[in-house]
Amino acid sequence: MRRPIGVIDSGVGGLTVASELVRQLPKESIIYLGDTKRCPYGPRPKEEVIQYTWEMVDFLLSKDIKTLVIACNTATAFTLDQLREELSIPVVGVIQPGARAAITSTRTGEIGVIGTEGTISSKAYVNALKQINTNIEVRDLACPRFVPLVEKGIVSGEEAYNVVKETLQSLKQFSNMDTLILGCTHYPMIRHLIHEVMGTTVTVISSGEETAREVSTILGYHKKLYRGTNDAQHHFYTTGDVNVFHEIASRWLEQKVDAVDKIELNTVKSLGRT
Amino acid sequence: MRRPIGVIDSGVGGLTVASELVRQLPKESIIYLGDTKRCPYGPRPKEEVIQYTWEMVDFLLSKDIKTLVIACNTATAFTLDQLREELSIPVVGVIQPGARAAITSTRTGEIGVIGTEGTISSKAYVNALKQINTNIEVRDLACPRFVPLVEKGIVSGEEAYNVVKETLQSLKQFSNMDTLILGCTHYPMIRHLIHEVMGTTVTVISSGEETAREVSTILGYHKKLYRGTNDAQHHFYTTGDVNVFHEIASRWLEQKVDAVDKIELNTVKSLGRT
Repeated sequence: MRRPIGVIDSGVGGLTVASELVRQLPKESIIYLGDTKRCPYGPRPKEEVIQYTWEMVDFLLSKDIKTLVIACNTATAFTLDQLREELSIPVVGVIQPGARAAITSTRTGEIGVIGTEGTISSKAYVNALKQINTNIEVRDLACPRFVPLVEKGIVSGEEAYNVVKETLQSLKQFSNMDTLILGCTHYPMIRHLIHEVMGTTVTVISSGEETAREVSTILGYHKKLYRGTNDAQHHFYTTGDVNVFHEIASRWLEQKVDAVDKIELNTVKSLGRT
Repeated sequence: MRRPIGVIDSGVGGLTVASELVRQLPKESIIYLGDTKRCPYGPRPKEEVIQYTWEMVDFLLSKDIKTLVIACNTATAFTLDQLREELSIPVVGVIQPGARAAITSTRTGEIGVIGTEGTISSKAYVNALKQINTNIEVRDLACPRFVPLVEKGIVSGEEAYNVVKETLQSLKQFSNMDTLILGCTHYPMIRHLIHEVMGTTVTVISSGEETAREVSTILGYHKKLYRGTNDAQHHFYTTGDVNVFHEIASRWLEQKVDAVDKIELNTVKSLGRT
């Protein structure tokens, strides 16, 4: 029996992580659950985020996942340690992989981080970076205009470029900064614009790409990579509108997405955990 | 008590991996053992490589290492699975991290691998890449002139550039190849020349750099990263000439290396394992 990789997110942002998993690990099946109905998690109290995350986790555990990816910065910040403690399968979040990749990449020791206001004010990336190397200089910036832009599908052209340019202006003063972490799962969709604005001297790190890489590392380390020859099968669940999710998923994954189902999470919870 | 990261290699090549560990994980102490007396391992029979590797491992286990890095392509190919099976600490080799990083990096799906004749003929990188993604096209090339060059200290200038250019000529025909793995721990010393010859469209992946990154991942995952504030202390052991080792280690690590000791491995073996 082939066990899938489980991916949870507060909405559609984690699809960029799922997309990287599909690209880097084409033999693996993926089950994705986006809690679009209650998205975003960023402004919610910690206890609520923890409860919602557990509801998603319980649903995926009922699907016999072999590893769990928390493709949501807020949920990673609040639940990663707890989930690692309590689950018997490997759990990977989005923050540490991005931080580690930035540390591998930087030569100057000055790293930028951009994300939503919630992620930036949580200092989750700063802490992850400093935990590994206390001498790293971190320049962080909240970019509240990026997510609405991406969700509206405005990912190229003059309007998108101008928003990116205006937003990142204040980071450009740090001429020693050679690495920039995209600390939000939506940002890979405008990576080319961010790269253009920051210039060729700055390496842009996508947390999603690096998270997929670490899932590969952890699964390889635990000898849990799929060794068979059957085609991968992916399944998507949303708590919100199926059609909207379907449209975004097909676009972001650059492939036809057949299996999208709507679920109710609180019902699942009472079934999944006792 | 602070436990060090153990690094073994057939000689000095693994110092590029140690150097990356020092750079990426500056709080961690490292114990390095290079079996310079019996280097290289490449031409030796498999059984001999396994025996020599176990002798090194036993010595490092007696130093209470918290994780083992096999910074030698030959030893990784022959002993990684066995060591993971038998040791209770995490074991990381140099092949899989390079392969995974290349898969993360490539957009065309065509990846080059260069290494010693032993590593290339073992197909270890090809197998590691194909195991993750059967559709990857691999272009591999043995570069027997690179190690002698680096060990003589000829890492820049016309002679070095010409050797690199002539050697890599046959890879240049693969215009779709966008990623090149340095499948030998010596090659990072001439990375700039390889990059110059291959051009800006090819991303050069250093196995050593990526191995250090995965050590960070695995230690982070197992909550084994050092959390204290004491300075790191490194210790080097060689089975060969201490002065030669000392000179190379100081040069490659770009810092003064104080603690280098000579040891006899067969004696250690009879003490270390019963």
